[in-house]
Amino acid sequence: MTGWRDGGLDPGNSVIGQSCPRVDGVSKVKGKTLFAADLNINGALYCRVLRSQVPNAILRSVDCSEALKVPGVVAVYTAADIPGENRVGIIVKDEPVLVEDRIRRAGDALALVVGRTEEALEEAVRKIQIDYQSQPGVFSVMEAMGEGAPAVHGENNIQSATSIVRGDADAAVSGARVVVTRRYTTQMAEHAYLEPEAGLAAVEDGVIKVWVSTQNPHYDRREISRMLGVGRHRVRVTQAPTGGGFGGKLDISVQCLLALAAFKTGRPVKMVYRREESFVASPKRHPYIIDYTSACDAEGRLLAVKIKIIGDTGAYASYGPATLKRAAVHAAGPYAVPNALIESYCVYTNNPTAGAMRGFGVPQMAFAHEAQMDLLAEALGIDPFTIRLRNCLKPGDITVTGQCLSHSVGIKETIEKARDRAMELGMLGKPAKNYGVGVGCMWYGIGNTGAPNPAGAFLDLLEDGTVVVLTGCADIGQGSDMVLAQIAAEELGVNIENVYVLSGDTGVSPDAGATSASRQTYVSGNAVYSAARQVKEILAREAREILGSGDANLDFRSGFVWRGGKKTEVTVKEIISGCGKKGILTLGSGCFNPPATGLNAEGQGMPYATYSYATQVAEVKVDTETGKVAVIRLVAAHDVGRAINPQSVEGQIEGGCLMGMGYALLEEVNLSGGVIENPRLAEYLLPMSLDAPEIHPVIVEEPESTGPFGAKGVGEPALIPTAAAIANAISKALGIRFCSLPVTPEKILAALEKRDGYLIQSAESTQQRR
Amino acid sequence: MTGWRDGGLDPGNSVIGQSCPRVDGVSKVKGKTLFAADLNINGALYCRVLRSQVPNAILRSVDCSEALKVPGVVAVYTAADIPGENRVGIIVKDEPVLVEDRIRRAGDALALVVGRTEEALEEAVRKIQIDYQSQPGVFSVMEAMGEGAPAVHGENNIQSATSIVRGDADAAVSGARVVVTRRYTTQMAEHAYLEPEAGLAAVEDGVIKVWVSTQNPHYDRREISRMLGVGRHRVRVTQAPTGGGFGGKLDISVQCLLALAAFKTGRPVKMVYRREESFVASPKRHPYIIDYTSACDAEGRLLAVKIKIIGDTGAYASYGPATLKRAAVHAAGPYAVPNALIESYCVYTNNPTAGAMRGFGVPQMAFAHEAQMDLLAEALGIDPFTIRLRNCLKPGDITVTGQCLSHSVGIKETIEKARDRAMELGMLGKPAKNYGVGVGCMWYGIGNTGAPNPAGAFLDLLEDGTVVVLTGCADIGQGSDMVLAQIAAEELGVNIENVYVLSGDTGVSPDAGATSASRQTYVSGNAVYSAARQVKEILAREAREILGSGDANLDFRSGFVWRGGKKTEVTVKEIISGCGKKGILTLGSGCFNPPATGLNAEGQGMPYATYSYATQVAEVKVDTETGKVAVIRLVAAHDVGRAINPQSVEGQIEGGCLMGMGYALLEEVNLSGGVIENPRLAEYLLPMSLDAPEIHPVIVEEPESTGPFGAKGVGEPALIPTAAAIANAISKALGIRFCSLPVTPEKILAALEKRDGYLIQSAESTQQRR
Repeated sequence: MTGWRDGGLDPGNSVIGQSCPRVDGVSKVKGKTLFAADLNINGALYCRVLRSQVPNAILRSVDCSEALKVPGVVAVYTAADIPGENRVGIIVKDEPVLVEDRIRRAGDALALVVGRTEEALEEAVRKIQIDYQSQPGVFSVMEAMGEGAPAVHGENNIQSATSIVRGDADAAVSGARVVVTRRYTTQMAEHAYLEPEAGLAAVEDGVIKVWVSTQNPHYDRREISRMLGVGRHRVRVTQAPTGGGFGGKLDISVQCLLALAAFKTGRPVKMVYRREESFVASPKRHPYIIDYTSACDAEGRLLAVKIKIIGDTGAYASYGPATLKRAAVHAAGPYAVPNALIESYCVYTNNPTAGAMRGFGVPQMAFAHEAQMDLLAEALGIDPFTIRLRNCLKPGDITVTGQCLSHSVGIKETIEKARDRAMELGMLGKPAKNYGVGVGCMWYGIGNTGAPNPAGAFLDLLEDGTVVVLTGCADIGQGSDMVLAQIAAEELGVNIENVYVLSGDTGVSPDAGATSASRQTYVSGNAVYSAARQVKEILAREAREILGSGDANLDFRSGFVWRGGKKTEVTVKEIISGCGKKGILTLGSGCFNPPATGLNAEGQGMPYATYSYATQVAEVKVDTETGKVAVIRLVAAHDVGRAINPQSVEGQIEGGCLMGMGYALLEEVNLSGGVIENPRLAEYLLPMSLDAPEIHPVIVEEPESTGPFGAKGVGEPALIPTAAAIANAISKALGIRFCSLPVTPEKILAALEKRDGYLIQSAESTQQRR
Repeated sequence: MTGWRDGGLDPGNSVIGQSCPRVDGVSKVKGKTLFAADLNINGALYCRVLRSQVPNAILRSVDCSEALKVPGVVAVYTAADIPGENRVGIIVKDEPVLVEDRIRRAGDALALVVGRTEEALEEAVRKIQIDYQSQPGVFSVMEAMGEGAPAVHGENNIQSATSIVRGDADAAVSGARVVVTRRYTTQMAEHAYLEPEAGLAAVEDGVIKVWVSTQNPHYDRREISRMLGVGRHRVRVTQAPTGGGFGGKLDISVQCLLALAAFKTGRPVKMVYRREESFVASPKRHPYIIDYTSACDAEGRLLAVKIKIIGDTGAYASYGPATLKRAAVHAAGPYAVPNALIESYCVYTNNPTAGAMRGFGVPQMAFAHEAQMDLLAEALGIDPFTIRLRNCLKPGDITVTGQCLSHSVGIKETIEKARDRAMELGMLGKPAKNYGVGVGCMWYGIGNTGAPNPAGAFLDLLEDGTVVVLTGCADIGQGSDMVLAQIAAEELGVNIENVYVLSGDTGVSPDAGATSASRQTYVSGNAVYSAARQVKEILAREAREILGSGDANLDFRSGFVWRGGKKTEVTVKEIISGCGKKGILTLGSGCFNPPATGLNAEGQGMPYATYSYATQVAEVKVDTETGKVAVIRLVAAHDVGRAINPQSVEGQIEGGCLMGMGYALLEEVNLSGGVIENPRLAEYLLPMSLDAPEIHPVIVEEPESTGPFGAKGVGEPALIPTAAAIANAISKALGIRFCSLPVTPEKILAALEKRDGYLIQSAESTQQRR
């Protein structure tokens, strides 16, 4: 019975917590995986987009007549060719697929050229005549929020605002022992996935089929269907193996353009963004301006926070409203704060669109709240670990949104374990010049903020122990296919190798929502768990008949039926055969939605069903002659509830730390009048493999009772505290507080030049000691 | 709300009974459909099989060394290369994929050559050295059943036997007014689908993927999995659009060979049978020898039948046991017969394998029992319609297996309606020379004979009224995708155009069993219905909350909720949104197994849950100089329970009639020592479009309460009575009874030459009148 997991009597023989190797691993390592750009259909046409060079203009006309004369060009489409609604957007439908009359950012798509060769497209794009009239643009959030600023959409540039009011923050601040106020600024950042946006589309039997690198094929289907004005049954989106997403492939990129071209020409079409186009067209991480006041008592216990956050979402909303709402909810950090006054604003400008990016607006907040904790600790002469342990959330504590955290609150354990590991490694208490150790903590709500975000799954168990799982959950490289396979295998007692997970194909898999918000292990994991439970119940009914054991509590392990913890002689194969003889197939469907609520006008509510927690400790050495920071070691302790696949969890942590390091030190999209100045990997600096520090992941497991086998999530938490820890380490190394990301060599050298004491105070910052 | 069927208040606005156009129709008509032979993967290798020329031999060795030297040849595989079990077979695993030591028929596969070009394969196949020793073979069932016959398998050539004993047939015969005894023989026939067997296979991420022209992808997966010795999760079989099956694509053809080649080489492989190979390798319709005695009283009421049926299943069992069991159950025809003694034998020989073919052993029986009915009628001077109406089954009657038919017994209505239509057309009572009208009746049990044959389905309803149905049911051209879509659309009140049916892909769809035995409308139809019911129940729970209407009986039509037959203001879209807000997706899974039982030792039991019935009337004119029969008109009245899609039902009837005409007059596989003499369409005669008579389908609807919306099945019934009706018409035209199919010009001329009266009596036949 090869299909059945042979667990023997060993209770430890669980597949949960095993680092099962990923089924896609070998193909990817061997370079055999066919990503979207590798796909082809004979006779496919190519597509290219003409994009606006200017950030704000009235588009008067697009003349395609000369372009159409280029040999090899099949068609040129403009907004007028879109049969349905020319508006997309995950939260707000504010972005045109092809601009009709108003250009709002450099990079807006104006026309789509379809042709037989790349060369023909190149020439045709050059020959399209655009008639437009430039308008004054707005390129800073402060300006955008001011009186009389040019409106990007409608009348007001404030796209959305969130307010959280708890207790009396002003009163608490005035009675506090220490109050620290700083302004923090963070940069616009690029996802910089290895694989640019790419896809293929074709029409078969009236169905528009799109294969695309994406994080949310079901959303893509909805948008294509609306844009073409056809039912969803006429659109099938299949997620191609995806070479990185990090939030940047949640929005519509090539999907609608490909679908339009295939729909109009009736022929297969293909499209791959060049790197520069990917930079220009894809959403970015929101730059924030954060005004942060923290107040504590003499023991360093937090009394209040007052925080104002402004995020630049650029020309279109994308995930901006959710990003800024999440920023507000997480602004106080993983600490018990009795009084809070938090506001956040999502603001339109004519800059590139900012949307979802790994951490979803929380890494910015972690940078701020962790600097604040260090500043409070320094003011009171307390150790950074101590002040965090003194304030961190514990079971029974109430968050700033009024949510009582009953269990699975692992922040304390992550602080202690990170500290202990740093101690073991000899990182702490090492006196050395320009050398520093910094601490960063974080919390992160799993799933969408207070919004319904269900996932569904189908499951089919076969006689030989094969399990087929159908899920909309896009595995974008994070390994969800394996995690879902493990959950199904565990519940049904089959071999993990016998679970076949088919994911991210709208033609066959139920909607599982976006692969975002670190939600898939928790949400889709629960959907698969629920489908498996349904199948288990079918098996149990049949097993009870065979065993004659009434309502006995039955389990299925290693291919046998277990009654009251004891193995019986009856095999699961017999049970399935028994079902088959009665015409009962062992099929199930499941779905799950995180039990959360929205926020009321005071920002009170239960925005997430559960939270992940983490503490990272960074060790840095600063070269004071070049300003270059070497990150030597990173300890990363993460409470993931339960690590379904520890190697995957460690992989996420390692990747997250490196991405966080880039965010801390290197990465920044530079703008000039709304135009990206460095839209190439030669100029947009990323950490390279040689820059990678030693990373020491520490897995902490505080089981979440509503999670599948206790699991929460780790995809984004892995990155969130890294920049905070590194920035704090630099501050320790130099005795200079940096309040602006990234902490580049230029900023360090400039700060060192001032050499006016331990604290470089920005104009806006004050510190008082009473 | 385009997705929702706008039924208004018209209760007649049902999609059931509408001739919805098939989604695959346009592509097929335009020649755009990609059948298995049209599929390709860049770099795919080709495969060819070396087949035995002799029907019975000991295989001593296969020497591939010279073949391997042919440039372009990549590999040659023999039985020794098969990693798992080298045996396939739907009922009995008696057929090797590649022969190990014993050749049992001309056409047995001995070696598989894989190479880069067809030319290389051609040469390599010639260069394989086979060392074998011929053995005496057995080529007739009489010989095979005799003492000392060479055993094809094991010791006994009787593969299986069925016996039905009801009442006392001997006693009833001896007390009867008229007793008629004849021997009937029927020919071996070929399916002759337009598309020969073809497929493509490739290995991706360790999964062996096979695209193939097939009637049962889930069975194919099981066989490939066993043959390779890998779990079913490692095998994915996707049914390619199939250009005809008729039972001939239920067995393994290219599936295992392709999987073996892809598995061994790791490269994509392709294979298309040439027409001659398709003839030689594929199963045939069983030739029968039927000894039939019927006895009736003075009014022509049947008192008893005594029937012995011997079927030649050739070298391997294939569907033989089921075919001969079905023959026994249906042997008495759609008539109430109080006393019956029926035996049937499935016999091995060294002839080509016979298996399933449209009608599954019943067209042979219809030819016999309908001739018998005419002979009884002639003996008593009764009209053919009258004797049939006098004997046909009615609700409450008991069949020869002891099954009480409670309802949906439409045989009487089909006789009356066929007669009436023939009358209207002026076919009856027309005195003309060499002109005759014949009647043929039939009954047909829907689904597998007394064996469990469940089908499963998944269903996903989206907010815009799109429905995704996943079903293992292979649409081989009969139109099941459309029928299942109509069933889903009806139950959920959505537009039929918005239903997307994905069928026949083992990677994503639950097992639905074979597309055979006219079962898919009834069995898979019920599975889809059941999944839709599950989704409807989810909707109803939410609707009750919104309407505050307790346990009210709710329905969903034209996108609205209906309460107690009255339309409310609440839309289904609102209901689904409401579910979404609670994290409930509208997903369902369903399965269905026909409520039937096996047969006991006396052949008593309930072998089928329900039966279809039909009466066909044929009008012929015989050219006595050439012996050629012109079929002028065919009236075909079929009780299908409920015609979900009348145009599809009529299409099945028209196609079935034409196929039945070929069976009556033309088609015959000629054998010489087990070798097919006419394995080409130039020599195996099929009716051409110009031969087609006027066909007048008459749909009779006696609803089956366990069927989806009352439906039963029509695929095979369409063909079953045609040869019987035509043979009876020829007998009327010439006054000569033909007891052997096909009734060829040669047989007619030979019979006319005898010219010794109205009845040509075979040696075995007797007729007595008391």
